[in-house]
Amino acid sequence: MLEFIPLLDKHSSVPIYVQLYQYIKQKIEDGDIPEGALLPSIRYLSGQLKISKNTVDGAYQQLLAEGYVASKARVGLVVLPLEQPVLSPSLQEIKYKSKVPMDNKEETFEYDFKYGDIDVNFFPIQIWKRCLTQALTDELEQLLSPGERQGYVGLREELANYLFQSRGVVCSEEQIVICSGTQHAISLILQLLSKNGERSVAMENPSYDGAKSVFNNHGWSIKPIRLEKDGIDIEQLKKVEAKVAYITPSHQFPYGMVLSIQKRLLLLEWANQNGSFIIEDDYDSEFRYQGQPIPSLKALDAKENVIYLGTFSKSFSPAVRVSYIVLPQRLMDAYNHMYGNYYQSVPSIVQKGLYILMNEGHFTSHIRKMRKVYENKHKTLVDALNKYMGNHIEIIGQKAGLHLLVNVKYRSTEELVKEAKKVGVRVYDPTLYALNDSEVNSSLIMMGFGGVSEEKIDKGVQLLNKAWFNGDN
Amino acid sequence: MLEFIPLLDKHSSVPIYVQLYQYIKQKIEDGDIPEGALLPSIRYLSGQLKISKNTVDGAYQQLLAEGYVASKARVGLVVLPLEQPVLSPSLQEIKYKSKVPMDNKEETFEYDFKYGDIDVNFFPIQIWKRCLTQALTDELEQLLSPGERQGYVGLREELANYLFQSRGVVCSEEQIVICSGTQHAISLILQLLSKNGERSVAMENPSYDGAKSVFNNHGWSIKPIRLEKDGIDIEQLKKVEAKVAYITPSHQFPYGMVLSIQKRLLLLEWANQNGSFIIEDDYDSEFRYQGQPIPSLKALDAKENVIYLGTFSKSFSPAVRVSYIVLPQRLMDAYNHMYGNYYQSVPSIVQKGLYILMNEGHFTSHIRKMRKVYENKHKTLVDALNKYMGNHIEIIGQKAGLHLLVNVKYRSTEELVKEAKKVGVRVYDPTLYALNDSEVNSSLIMMGFGGVSEEKIDKGVQLLNKAWFNGDN
Repeated sequence: MLEFIPLLDKHSSVPIYVQLYQYIKQKIEDGDIPEGALLPSIRYLSGQLKISKNTVDGAYQQLLAEGYVASKARVGLVVLPLEQPVLSPSLQEIKYKSKVPMDNKEETFEYDFKYGDIDVNFFPIQIWKRCLTQALTDELEQLLSPGERQGYVGLREELANYLFQSRGVVCSEEQIVICSGTQHAISLILQLLSKNGERSVAMENPSYDGAKSVFNNHGWSIKPIRLEKDGIDIEQLKKVEAKVAYITPSHQFPYGMVLSIQKRLLLLEWANQNGSFIIEDDYDSEFRYQGQPIPSLKALDAKENVIYLGTFSKSFSPAVRVSYIVLPQRLMDAYNHMYGNYYQSVPSIVQKGLYILMNEGHFTSHIRKMRKVYENKHKTLVDALNKYMGNHIEIIGQKAGLHLLVNVKYRSTEELVKEAKKVGVRVYDPTLYALNDSEVNSSLIMMGFGGVSEEKIDKGVQLLNKAWFNGDN
Repeated sequence: MLEFIPLLDKHSSVPIYVQLYQYIKQKIEDGDIPEGALLPSIRYLSGQLKISKNTVDGAYQQLLAEGYVASKARVGLVVLPLEQPVLSPSLQEIKYKSKVPMDNKEETFEYDFKYGDIDVNFFPIQIWKRCLTQALTDELEQLLSPGERQGYVGLREELANYLFQSRGVVCSEEQIVICSGTQHAISLILQLLSKNGERSVAMENPSYDGAKSVFNNHGWSIKPIRLEKDGIDIEQLKKVEAKVAYITPSHQFPYGMVLSIQKRLLLLEWANQNGSFIIEDDYDSEFRYQGQPIPSLKALDAKENVIYLGTFSKSFSPAVRVSYIVLPQRLMDAYNHMYGNYYQSVPSIVQKGLYILMNEGHFTSHIRKMRKVYENKHKTLVDALNKYMGNHIEIIGQKAGLHLLVNVKYRSTEELVKEAKKVGVRVYDPTLYALNDSEVNSSLIMMGFGGVSEEKIDKGVQLLNKAWFNGDN
């Protein structure tokens, strides 16, 4: 058992659990706590440090979430080998090719590792049908009006409750705006923030191209910020003087790292000192397969600088086209002034259907079920990749979300995608998400697994191995 | 029987039926054809002028639509008394007060003549429920993806067909974009037109405040254009040098006049010569109670300068939150470039439900039914107004749409609204739609009748008479 004597400052603005987490993390990174070592039990450490068990647990969950330790049954938390940095410098400046294709008429493949698909086999179609039918029957009159401007109040109340429970976000239904998808939400936010004359945004590079297009179409310029292993490079961010930053902290898109707690605090501090707003796109927060979810930026946002974005596309269905904004209280006046005579954009039947789904508890049980389903798929994919071509590849990203990246060493992405197609497998090129077009080649492949069965995942990876390495492991 | 010897130029770019219509209209306005006179029969005139019966019919329908003549059973078309100009100069410059209230929590009134309500009693709830249920069952996989970018192709095909049949619009489904309401549609259009650096729009004054807010929020400036009896003042429009004009030609909002055929042609000519785009918001086109619908601007748009906007809010239900854009072919490349990786914003279940509704013929029969329902309500309202306070008021606007304006002579709108509330009747102030805030008082009242029963319409007007004139007619 290791001895811990961290200096915990109870008067600091940094929470105790974060201080403890930072201390242990530093010790692991410095090699003071070696690979394979056991962390002390929660009970022991809370007694030693005279802090609550919950506080120790918070720190441990964070270390689990970021992959520094793993839980071993009947033993405790074991320190894992340090990962290689997620991004080698050459990978950060990947080539920009063209916009990501969204053509619906494109070729279909037997094995399609498309990002964004969900598993249709587990969709609660009967329950959803009942919710919609009930929504259609209830209150006919209300269903014939455009509905409340910010969205159906019942749904907003359920969301406020859900966000508090699952993401630590404290807000009232009055701060929530229901939107027709994330792009629609970003468009409304940009118009709101434009009122101060702001026209530029800092974004992780690479980042979600759908958001980038909205910024471009509104005439905003984009300031690309480097990614580090634990998320956006705060130092570079500080240099660009942006008043708005768009971030995907729960599961960076497309790289998949989770923004570390330290960086979350630094980011909030930056926003506060710089008078900036952070748009937190929390798109994949429901699916973490290790440790507890990390608190959202919005949960830590004491100074009201975070505009939170959530979506039902991943957690329930992309077909419902429903997202939501949580606005800081201090933006509500401006919001009401600008959008006071806007109509709600989501059909009331869908809003009421989602309300019934949440209100009757089906939504949380669906997420619980899907987390297990996707965790199994994630494991199947990782196992298959290691089994069939472990010597040739490196898996990038954290144990979360519905996709991962694979670095196929010394091969070009373009060639890999082309060769995969020949054996009926579709994999994707993440360099399409780069914000600038430096001329560096990539060997990265993006694989979504949400919509692929475990059987097909295994078979698909076998085929990839055949295509790329003639079946050689 | 009158003698007609109009000079019709078969080589002109102005259609013959328009020339004939213009000729007769001028004669009526000049008093050459007096009130009460009969127009010659279609058969007679087509023989005299050596033109087809359809051509004569086209001209007559236009005169009917614009209220110059009325159809009298077994007699023919009778010339009606000339209306007073819709807008006295003082009414054109009405006071701007504040944004139109859309608060959902506001007081409810027994008699609410709110604009925008539809009649819930005639809503085909069982059919709509069946369409949605069927949409949910069909093609589960497709219902779990965000769907085609511009909207479900089946719905777009039905719309292309419907627009051709009912509005004379010739377009392919590829030019149609399904949107979450008119405001969302305008937002997308503005971003598209901004690419040329354009940032100002000419609008009828007064006009739809919901559109005005979208222009403002995108940083566009608004150039208000006077209204004349037959629509926007083309001469003033020519002077302001706008590259974009937003127009409600089928039923000017809120005044209710129909843009005359001459002005439609002049407007298109202006757009062509000036290199401008016209945004045609055809929101109330389904409900004309006299004559045939006038062809849309888009139907006459040979030079591809018209961007057409339609909505299901009035014709079916505001709760579905579905509108659509018809883009000119020449804008498609720019559209695809800007929105190539945007997701569709309307839930697929609602799109597919509307597709089934249209495909099975329920949509057109619903419109046919509602046209009769609203025509009866319109008649009941006009009759009640004339019966109970005919001496004190003047009804403004054409026989179309779901609302009309009443000029209550020598009284102030503010006072009228307040007095009406005291007897449990809510009527509205159309001056809220003015684009500028000159200090001229108004005596106009706006009354929507779509959501009010005939019985309540009659009783409500009786109460208004009591409140405003102590029951004196």
